[in-house]
Amino acid sequence: MAWFGRFVQLANVKNSARPTNPNHFLTSLSHFSSTAGPAPAAAVRSRQPNLAPTRPDEKPRVVVLGSGWAACRLMKGLDTKAYDVVCVSPRNHMVFTPLLASTCVGTLEFRSVAEPIARIQPAISTAPGSYFFLANCTGVDPDDHSVQCETVTDGISSLEPWKFKITYDKLVVALGAEASTFGIHGVNENAIFLREVHHAQEIRRKLLLNLMLSDVPGISEEEKRRLLHCVVVGGGPTGVEFSGELSDFIMKDVHQRYAHVKDFIHVTLIEVFPIARVLDYNAFHLFPKLISQSLLQANEILSSFDDRLRRYATKQLTKSGVRLVQGVVKDVKSQKIILNDGTEVPYGLLVWSTGVGPSPFVRSLQLPKSPGGRIGVDEWLRVPSVRDIFAIGDCSGFLESTGKPVLPALAQVAERQGKYLAELLNSVAKAGGGRANSIKEIALGDPFVYRHLGSMATVGRYKALVDLRQSKEAKGLSLAGFTSWFIWRSAYLTRVVSWRNRFYVAINWFTTFVFGRDISRI
Amino acid sequence: MAWFGRFVQLANVKNSARPTNPNHFLTSLSHFSSTAGPAPAAAVRSRQPNLAPTRPDEKPRVVVLGSGWAACRLMKGLDTKAYDVVCVSPRNHMVFTPLLASTCVGTLEFRSVAEPIARIQPAISTAPGSYFFLANCTGVDPDDHSVQCETVTDGISSLEPWKFKITYDKLVVALGAEASTFGIHGVNENAIFLREVHHAQEIRRKLLLNLMLSDVPGISEEEKRRLLHCVVVGGGPTGVEFSGELSDFIMKDVHQRYAHVKDFIHVTLIEVFPIARVLDYNAFHLFPKLISQSLLQANEILSSFDDRLRRYATKQLTKSGVRLVQGVVKDVKSQKIILNDGTEVPYGLLVWSTGVGPSPFVRSLQLPKSPGGRIGVDEWLRVPSVRDIFAIGDCSGFLESTGKPVLPALAQVAERQGKYLAELLNSVAKAGGGRANSIKEIALGDPFVYRHLGSMATVGRYKALVDLRQSKEAKGLSLAGFTSWFIWRSAYLTRVVSWRNRFYVAINWFTTFVFGRDISRI
Repeated sequence: MAWFGRFVQLANVKNSARPTNPNHFLTSLSHFSSTAGPAPAAAVRSRQPNLAPTRPDEKPRVVVLGSGWAACRLMKGLDTKAYDVVCVSPRNHMVFTPLLASTCVGTLEFRSVAEPIARIQPAISTAPGSYFFLANCTGVDPDDHSVQCETVTDGISSLEPWKFKITYDKLVVALGAEASTFGIHGVNENAIFLREVHHAQEIRRKLLLNLMLSDVPGISEEEKRRLLHCVVVGGGPTGVEFSGELSDFIMKDVHQRYAHVKDFIHVTLIEVFPIARVLDYNAFHLFPKLISQSLLQANEILSSFDDRLRRYATKQLTKSGVRLVQGVVKDVKSQKIILNDGTEVPYGLLVWSTGVGPSPFVRSLQLPKSPGGRIGVDEWLRVPSVRDIFAIGDCSGFLESTGKPVLPALAQVAERQGKYLAELLNSVAKAGGGRANSIKEIALGDPFVYRHLGSMATVGRYKALVDLRQSKEAKGLSLAGFTSWFIWRSAYLTRVVSWRNRFYVAINWFTTFVFGRDISRI
Repeated sequence: MAWFGRFVQLANVKNSARPTNPNHFLTSLSHFSSTAGPAPAAAVRSRQPNLAPTRPDEKPRVVVLGSGWAACRLMKGLDTKAYDVVCVSPRNHMVFTPLLASTCVGTLEFRSVAEPIARIQPAISTAPGSYFFLANCTGVDPDDHSVQCETVTDGISSLEPWKFKITYDKLVVALGAEASTFGIHGVNENAIFLREVHHAQEIRRKLLLNLMLSDVPGISEEEKRRLLHCVVVGGGPTGVEFSGELSDFIMKDVHQRYAHVKDFIHVTLIEVFPIARVLDYNAFHLFPKLISQSLLQANEILSSFDDRLRRYATKQLTKSGVRLVQGVVKDVKSQKIILNDGTEVPYGLLVWSTGVGPSPFVRSLQLPKSPGGRIGVDEWLRVPSVRDIFAIGDCSGFLESTGKPVLPALAQVAERQGKYLAELLNSVAKAGGGRANSIKEIALGDPFVYRHLGSMATVGRYKALVDLRQSKEAKGLSLAGFTSWFIWRSAYLTRVVSWRNRFYVAINWFTTFVFGRDISRI
């Protein structure tokens, strides 16, 4: 704090040098150097996080890696009287992913779908032993019961990433998954995924940029058409919902606010090999030919819904001007996609949404793996062969030995696992097993069982699909149309985490209806 | 459109290759290749902007450079039955600058202070001869009555900037000003200005990053204090309002959501040489020593307000923990400021707000100049010696020959000039002088006269200053405190351009009051 003392001194000298000319600063500076000045170093209680192994007089520490559905639901449910919670993630918020597609075109605002973790579990910012660290986990040491982390500095060159170690009593890995590119060249460089708020921001900025660039004098009609060709690869719920939102945006807002170029903008949805989504990621790399030959048989959008609903979605989307095509993408260049048969598809905006797979970090972990390369867990979501490590959400899957299938990478699976594990850990703590290496004698209760509550997807123009059956074969409610859309909106509105965001989502929907979508490119 | 035809063909071939296996795509694809397919090239009416000199059967064209207060008020007021309007600007929205400081800490959302130009003047996106171009002006040719432009591609490497020319009947230069750095080394690289939405976004991201980084285990107390030292350079309304907002954020939200580090965060406001703001930019470069010696006499915040209000502001800010100091900045490094006497001031966030000066492009224009290097105008805001060119807002100033002082760079000056010029151009068009080179015989009416309506500034904690006098010496209302704050909020709420944003500003204020500020770092 030497610099600070000197700074104060300097300010005082300057003031005392002209005592005959008192000005407002005199007050402020004397105040500054006495009461408001920095307290002596000793008086500032050191709140340096102590992340060595917990002592008997401390609460046991649960370290949570990640801040998605699974991690956040877990943290919300954890009993902070029984545990200290430490969360490590490169983002300080949870994204309400089902509504992310709506933010790309301004139907919803970005902040309406982002929930700060400190609001989901206030302990991480207030309790003495609980923390949130904006960092990536770089290594797990099960024997030492510790994780290695490195701070996220976000491209600020003046900041060196800071490395630190956290010891855990319980470790929950909830690192999620990352977008699958199936090793296709150029996807990472040229396509935009749709998994984080910054992806949605990038899509919105690029879409608005292209709309404006295409209106510039002297640009050829072909280039104009390319700039305004929005291609979505992947016919799952995200790709379909985004296509629907995009066509709504075009029909209402582009026609009104970009009338000069409205006839040039088009949306194409390319459905590619849904089969690869359920296959082992590695299998695709080993047998790409085999798989690509069998693809055309399996092509269809929204494969998790039944035939009737799929037909309805197809009809609605084509009615809205979305072109549905099938193809196998071979290569992605900066302005065009090249299909397997050599066809070139120029584009101005390319959104890639062909499912997810485990991240390189998850694959690199020396832990048991499930089919598909996820972290393998038993029926209680424990990682066997190591102690006190659990895995939930998209990064985890049942081990083959459990005889259960790997669950799909869905928000509702992750959320349910987070809730289950919070209850399990709370009961473990009550039984005195919170501390590291103390769990083995404790009964864990019922294993985790997943019951599918149903699927929903909007297709634009106030229409949606709702399928409340446990599987395609089961009996139950499945419907499509405006009523479904109303159910879709109501259901998600009640699922939004906080009252603040619930309020903003409703307000956003209202203003989109009344004033149209916002087109400022900020 | 060759690629498109081929694409359609391909899709059809694929479908016809398996006629025994009809699926939903068959419908969609036949639809795609017939009705919803691209219309033949001839049928798509070419809407390519024609920006050659206007023909007698066209409306005369007003080209507006810029999208700030002056440009937007002008475009709003222009009679689009008499003129085609073409706006050239690197951003497609206007920023409601008086509320920008509030967005840095989340009191308001970014979009609540950004107004799309297409909503201010809908003609630019719908009328056949009116356009908005996302571009920078790179040259003005008064003899040819044309401007050269280059599209903004925003760092997207696959897009080459596109150059084009626009011919004007009337040209309005409203390019604004840029932040003054007085040639101090390192300011552009390390400090953040506060003039655009992306500046506010950068400040918010950096502030939240620093709050989180400072909580990481093992970081030294000195580094923690540096990361959380927010330095504001410049004691004008922007610097003061930002400091006030920042201290509000610290007192409420940091104490609640970043409780671990709340004792380490501090705000320092450094006031530097207000004298340089009214001096010729060039003079400062010629006589830097002379000026820096005289600086300490003139140091005080909010120099445009009277003593009583300034004293009040000083008291309020220091009460909120803002340190007010004076100094001459010599050099800015990535983590510290160096003052003239060698004192080093470490910082984590540096916001620079020491007034504005003409941009290099404005200085490079071969047009008459006012004192201070702005574009020189006569009493009717015309640029003499060239025909049909007008200049308004911060980029313009009265010529010395008019005997009038250069007006301050304020939103209310720019707005008034925009309004005045819109009326002048409308009446010129009515009198048949809209066309290039046809204005000279027409009486222009009353010259532009600026009457200052007063100044306002918030200082945080529901307090503000309001001075409704024309000058410090004049009689009239001047008050400080909660009532002023209420006047400040009400006044700005009514000034916000659209009902949509007025609604959102009110909602943002409401949710900030109820739920606190948003701290998601997106």
